[in-house]
Amino acid sequence: MGVLFNPKTVALVGASSDPDKLGSHTLKSLTGGEFSGKIFPVNPKGGMMMGLEAHVSLKEIPDPVDLVVIIIPAQWVLGVVKDCIEIGVKGIVMITGGFKEVGDENGTHLQEQIAELANGAGIPIIGPNTFGILNRGIGMNASFSPDFSAAKKGNVAIVSQSGGVTHVIGYMAMRNNVGLGKIMGLGNRCNIDFADALDFLMQDPDTKVIAMYMEGMDNPRQLIETAQRHRGRKPVVVLKSGSAAQSNEASLSHTGTLAGSHEIYAAGLRQAGILCVNSVEEMVDAVKILDAAPLWDGINTAIVSGQAGPAIIACDALERNGLAVLPFNKSLQSKINDILPPLTMRSNPVDLGPAWYQLKLFKGITEVICEDDDIAAILLVIVLGEGNKHFIKGISAMLSDLSERKPVVGCFVFPSTEWDKDVAAIEEASAFVSYPSPERAAGALANLCLARKIKATIE
Amino acid sequence: MGVLFNPKTVALVGASSDPDKLGSHTLKSLTGGEFSGKIFPVNPKGGMMMGLEAHVSLKEIPDPVDLVVIIIPAQWVLGVVKDCIEIGVKGIVMITGGFKEVGDENGTHLQEQIAELANGAGIPIIGPNTFGILNRGIGMNASFSPDFSAAKKGNVAIVSQSGGVTHVIGYMAMRNNVGLGKIMGLGNRCNIDFADALDFLMQDPDTKVIAMYMEGMDNPRQLIETAQRHRGRKPVVVLKSGSAAQSNEASLSHTGTLAGSHEIYAAGLRQAGILCVNSVEEMVDAVKILDAAPLWDGINTAIVSGQAGPAIIACDALERNGLAVLPFNKSLQSKINDILPPLTMRSNPVDLGPAWYQLKLFKGITEVICEDDDIAAILLVIVLGEGNKHFIKGISAMLSDLSERKPVVGCFVFPSTEWDKDVAAIEEASAFVSYPSPERAAGALANLCLARKIKATIE
Repeated sequence: MGVLFNPKTVALVGASSDPDKLGSHTLKSLTGGEFSGKIFPVNPKGGMMMGLEAHVSLKEIPDPVDLVVIIIPAQWVLGVVKDCIEIGVKGIVMITGGFKEVGDENGTHLQEQIAELANGAGIPIIGPNTFGILNRGIGMNASFSPDFSAAKKGNVAIVSQSGGVTHVIGYMAMRNNVGLGKIMGLGNRCNIDFADALDFLMQDPDTKVIAMYMEGMDNPRQLIETAQRHRGRKPVVVLKSGSAAQSNEASLSHTGTLAGSHEIYAAGLRQAGILCVNSVEEMVDAVKILDAAPLWDGINTAIVSGQAGPAIIACDALERNGLAVLPFNKSLQSKINDILPPLTMRSNPVDLGPAWYQLKLFKGITEVICEDDDIAAILLVIVLGEGNKHFIKGISAMLSDLSERKPVVGCFVFPSTEWDKDVAAIEEASAFVSYPSPERAAGALANLCLARKIKATIE
Repeated sequence: MGVLFNPKTVALVGASSDPDKLGSHTLKSLTGGEFSGKIFPVNPKGGMMMGLEAHVSLKEIPDPVDLVVIIIPAQWVLGVVKDCIEIGVKGIVMITGGFKEVGDENGTHLQEQIAELANGAGIPIIGPNTFGILNRGIGMNASFSPDFSAAKKGNVAIVSQSGGVTHVIGYMAMRNNVGLGKIMGLGNRCNIDFADALDFLMQDPDTKVIAMYMEGMDNPRQLIETAQRHRGRKPVVVLKSGSAAQSNEASLSHTGTLAGSHEIYAAGLRQAGILCVNSVEEMVDAVKILDAAPLWDGINTAIVSGQAGPAIIACDALERNGLAVLPFNKSLQSKINDILPPLTMRSNPVDLGPAWYQLKLFKGITEVICEDDDIAAILLVIVLGEGNKHFIKGISAMLSDLSERKPVVGCFVFPSTEWDKDVAAIEEASAFVSYPSPERAAGALANLCLARKIKATIE
């Protein structure tokens, strides 16, 4: 599968210069994403497209072609697959729909024929009925969504059965400053299924965290066995839909597979060391922390806040998520009392009170907490307005040092999205991650803790 | 209490021109928020501050003073309260801290003395130990947070025991395009408690939805009786903290009251017709829909989406939240089949498939669904990239019409925050509200449904 993500040459069959067509969107993705390999548009009419000369067929391309992206009507796809085999391509991304998902015999039969041919030739096919694939690491965007080329480069992989959900997860990840690596829409899974994708990504050195969205599987046992085999190697976060009665039927018409018994799937996935989440937001929050923060032992979390109320909310949320907020041990408490004047809450949670305005005290407190072995992680709640937003710089310097030693998550609260880039810069420069609410920060920490427990079972 | 929010004249005792002092932030709030009344800075040193002449004491102000904001050290506050009584002010906002929340006898005694004096004179006091109050409707910002003056004007009131949490809720509301009206930090609740605030806001014509954050109450019975008396009149959304063991102790030091038994409080609040939420995000999502959308009967929700996967996620989330996604009745299904070609899911949820690119079909489908009596609400999932973001305009025109008739909530998914303002414009022009994920849209709809049920009990 590696060649799918690291081709030297890519051909796009169905390339178009009509801006209303997916063939044009996909060409824009390929040409606009810093990909350094060669790109060959293919269109029977030939002509120039986005500065490239279109070839009338695959066979007319002078160079060897590694990857072929197909985006032409279903009835012509079989012929193109035969051409692919003839010229020796190494992988296919089949964006075209109209196969098994339609639910009629023709579509299913056509898909089976394609799979048989490709399997015979040893060619992996992503799709059909996929939005495409990406490798942000090398700037290759072989999908119909040029927007993904603006994603921050990183080590989170997304594997999804649904193109739509890939966009919901991926776009939310982009808005939350998550670094993305390999993204793939599996679509109808002609010969590449979740198990293949998982097996590949577990061994891929550029992937640190794997996010998967699934509706149904033809072969759940294979996935669970694969997950079991790689258990604890890298965190895998799964969002599995189909708990509702109507969802199940909808899944069938969507990608040709019943979602199946939701509870049985979920139990099987959990046993195989997979983190199961309940929403897109929880998934994005989880992969963000799993990508950035060090794994940690224990559940005891220290809360440091400039305000008492938000700290109390964080405290509730941590306990609700199975983590603990315990009073500090005597030695730590006395160190904090040496730094922080009375007046405010000095136990766990710590309310910095007036010390909030003195970065030196803030730093001192956070440091002694970080050094204490009883504390597994730190949650910071920081509310800033125009009058004190200049603190961000000082806080940033403090966090870059601390967050490498222990998980430090934050909840930065601003009145406007304008300052989010300042927090993104802190995230860029450190292992610190921030969330828009205390509850989301607590939820992410809980998933980080769970990932540590899963890893511990193989140590 | 009305005069607190509609003063003609406001004096700020402790006004300062030192940008590091709260007295300066508060003067900035007062002068920067479109307030058309007169503002009198008071500072024993006199001088000019932000273009206004400071008076050396309250008694030197030539005009009658309606509202006095106090932000001087605690030991001088009693004297100022006596001055307030002498010159006949109608309300006080006491930002100063250092009273009951400190936990010593002196602070408690001082607060009691102040309360006694004010009660004798019939003067309502917000605080002490509050961040202040706002009335966005008239642009009055009597708080130390000038940033709140940028909030969209609207009909959501926020009442909070914690200034920090007011900022977490308020700033999140601002970032989610929620229109705010009256905001008040109750602080130590010297003589204005939750029950007073609730009673006032229930009768305030400019308030449509009430959001409250509470830790503990000296007199929960009074609040619950007040809520019961106004039950169903307006939606009240409460976030109550203190479920965790450590939270309870923290609350005591924060605002001088134990959070109390969380479960007993929550049960009492629910019985009194209050919507209890579990997170800041759920609160903001709830007040947004309660402010904008019409209340509705029934739980059956139609999902219309441009992509199948996100629709399936929405379906799961709706059912998990106690709503239903049922197959359409025969008549509605046949109307949809007349508009939408086969190939995609045409039952509930509807996957528009290629019709997604034809606004006329999209509109036709959404309209026949909206007209059907079996359908209580509509959830739209709309994923847009650079290539099709021009649809927003057409979708906007469609939604402004439909959303007045039935609740129509959406989940617009974009790769960048840049386009959020386009969705905000739709929200501005209609009763439509949008959320960043299908799950959050479903959660908000569930709270809207619950509010309808509470209202029904008094009809």
